[in-house]
Amino acid sequence: MEQKAPRITDVARLAGVSTATVSRALSKPETVAESTRNLVLAAAEKSGYRVNLSARNLRRQRTGAIVVLVPNLGNPFFSEILAGIETALSKADFNMLVVDTRQAHMKPQLVSEYLHATRADGIIGLDGSLPDPVLSAATSGSGSPPIIFACEWTPRGQFPSVRANNTRGGELAIAHLAGLGHRGIGMICGPEENVLTRGRSAGALAGLAALGLTFDPRHLFPGDFSLDAGARAALAWLDLKQRPTALFCHSDQMAFGFISELARHGVAVPDDVSVVGFDDIAIARRYIPALTTLHQPRYRIGYAAAEMLLGHIRSASSLAVETKILEVELIVRDSTAAPRGCAKRAVDP
Amino acid sequence: MEQKAPRITDVARLAGVSTATVSRALSKPETVAESTRNLVLAAAEKSGYRVNLSARNLRRQRTGAIVVLVPNLGNPFFSEILAGIETALSKADFNMLVVDTRQAHMKPQLVSEYLHATRADGIIGLDGSLPDPVLSAATSGSGSPPIIFACEWTPRGQFPSVRANNTRGGELAIAHLAGLGHRGIGMICGPEENVLTRGRSAGALAGLAALGLTFDPRHLFPGDFSLDAGARAALAWLDLKQRPTALFCHSDQMAFGFISELARHGVAVPDDVSVVGFDDIAIARRYIPALTTLHQPRYRIGYAAAEMLLGHIRSASSLAVETKILEVELIVRDSTAAPRGCAKRAVDP
Repeated sequence: MEQKAPRITDVARLAGVSTATVSRALSKPETVAESTRNLVLAAAEKSGYRVNLSARNLRRQRTGAIVVLVPNLGNPFFSEILAGIETALSKADFNMLVVDTRQAHMKPQLVSEYLHATRADGIIGLDGSLPDPVLSAATSGSGSPPIIFACEWTPRGQFPSVRANNTRGGELAIAHLAGLGHRGIGMICGPEENVLTRGRSAGALAGLAALGLTFDPRHLFPGDFSLDAGARAALAWLDLKQRPTALFCHSDQMAFGFISELARHGVAVPDDVSVVGFDDIAIARRYIPALTTLHQPRYRIGYAAAEMLLGHIRSASSLAVETKILEVELIVRDSTAAPRGCAKRAVDP
Repeated sequence: MEQKAPRITDVARLAGVSTATVSRALSKPETVAESTRNLVLAAAEKSGYRVNLSARNLRRQRTGAIVVLVPNLGNPFFSEILAGIETALSKADFNMLVVDTRQAHMKPQLVSEYLHATRADGIIGLDGSLPDPVLSAATSGSGSPPIIFACEWTPRGQFPSVRANNTRGGELAIAHLAGLGHRGIGMICGPEENVLTRGRSAGALAGLAALGLTFDPRHLFPGDFSLDAGARAALAWLDLKQRPTALFCHSDQMAFGFISELARHGVAVPDDVSVVGFDDIAIARRYIPALTTLHQPRYRIGYAAAEMLLGHIRSASSLAVETKILEVELIVRDSTAAPRGCAKRAVDP
């Protein structure tokens, strides 16, 4: 192994500086003068010496990387969170390693490998339903880097997290719809066991209760946050005899699926039924109608989670089980209006 | 440094196997029996030994990581490409390191560091406008890992790439609109210097020429692929005396911006003007109207680029300047129809 170790002495001789200076110039460039750094870099290039980060990280007992576990990279919802994480990490000279956890459900072993301290200095989970083997690996202690959840979190075990105020979001949606005069308010939910679903549902039910309104369980449509789930809910809504005049959807995607499927059946939003989404993804303000929704500060959630994790890594303190809750904001656009009591008539002329 | 080197002998003693077996079990688990692997893993856990990937990669002169340069992680367009790359890489036991190149334009030095072989075994660029210092670092030879472009590519220098057939996409859009009877066909373009813009424009102009149709330069609306650019084009379209009756947009996002801004002004698509997008992002089929667009096989583009890069890394051959072109497909939905010659009347009743 020794023969393959970086020949830092060659670079030092070529640059006419000490090996300590070479080391500093390459690992903490901000601690040496620009001119010295350029000298060292030129010498490194000339001698064929590679800034060997593996060796450096080995010395430091650091990997220089944070692993982010994302439920589905194909879902645009996560892109803004990742952008927030990446910005915070790159400021601190850490890399972001992205792992799609669809893998985790198929091959827990593969993902467990990421949860060892030699692969990553920390983990940010955006997936609240990590399979048990993965979570066990993360909590087994020895060799496990700190883990923080962002946006989603897991109810099993105690982990720090940064999340939006989902309960408050549910309350705001109901208050808005009830304020417009709606009394029959339905809901298109995320997966039943999902923590976001639970928070948003609890908030909505609390909001209804506070206003003395009842919730008809037939007006609860199951979903999974996807466009298709929204479309399925639309078909179920069309089949109802007593239709809710307003729907609170647990994601913008389900709202779009719902609205577009209704449009195919000649039902217009908000004329025939009002719709509130959740997330405020980019297209929400450019949908037709522009979507009334709860704005989640996704970039800030990602950024805050990365900051919390980096703070812990820097201080080498044990990670407090802290929960940082960022506020959501109701953005009123064109998909909600006062009920006209004519939802049924519009469909069956 | 020696004291911190992994004590593989401790694990071997504890597991009752040779150090070579420990090494194989940890680095190439598929080459040892399941029972042996479990024995080694248990021993590694017990002894506090960490599967030291830094050390392993140092021995192999590999980093085990591929860097993907993404123009903007906040843009959902890239998520499917990343998913394709991630799937191909994880099959080969490589990590994906994602770097947002907004950083590259602000701090080329920071991104250049990724382009050294000790940080990554290869690079996939999704950004055709990388700044010169970054590209120079990638082409300087010594210490640079191979780079492949996916989706976008850079016209400077010769790099392998995997891309959609943008020219063909432009031709198909025009053929479809002309086939419906449109004669005045406009275009909302991407950035002028962008390679995708050039391919799509060239295809559209060739398509018009083949049909003996002329292109009115006043019907070319500049854009940057964004929702806002589409909305700006809508305002420009509304200002025209002689309006094109159909628009070919270089991205779905611009099509949505265009359609939604027109809707605010009481102009309906496709009744008053037909619109073709490009990309076929998920929401396209659930927009109102569902968008006629060119389907880009984004997942397959990412997967193919990763495969091409891995093939090169495995064979350690020099990377041939190969271009793999995947076909696009016209998906006809509801945003295009025959012209009614009444676009102007609908706006000024």
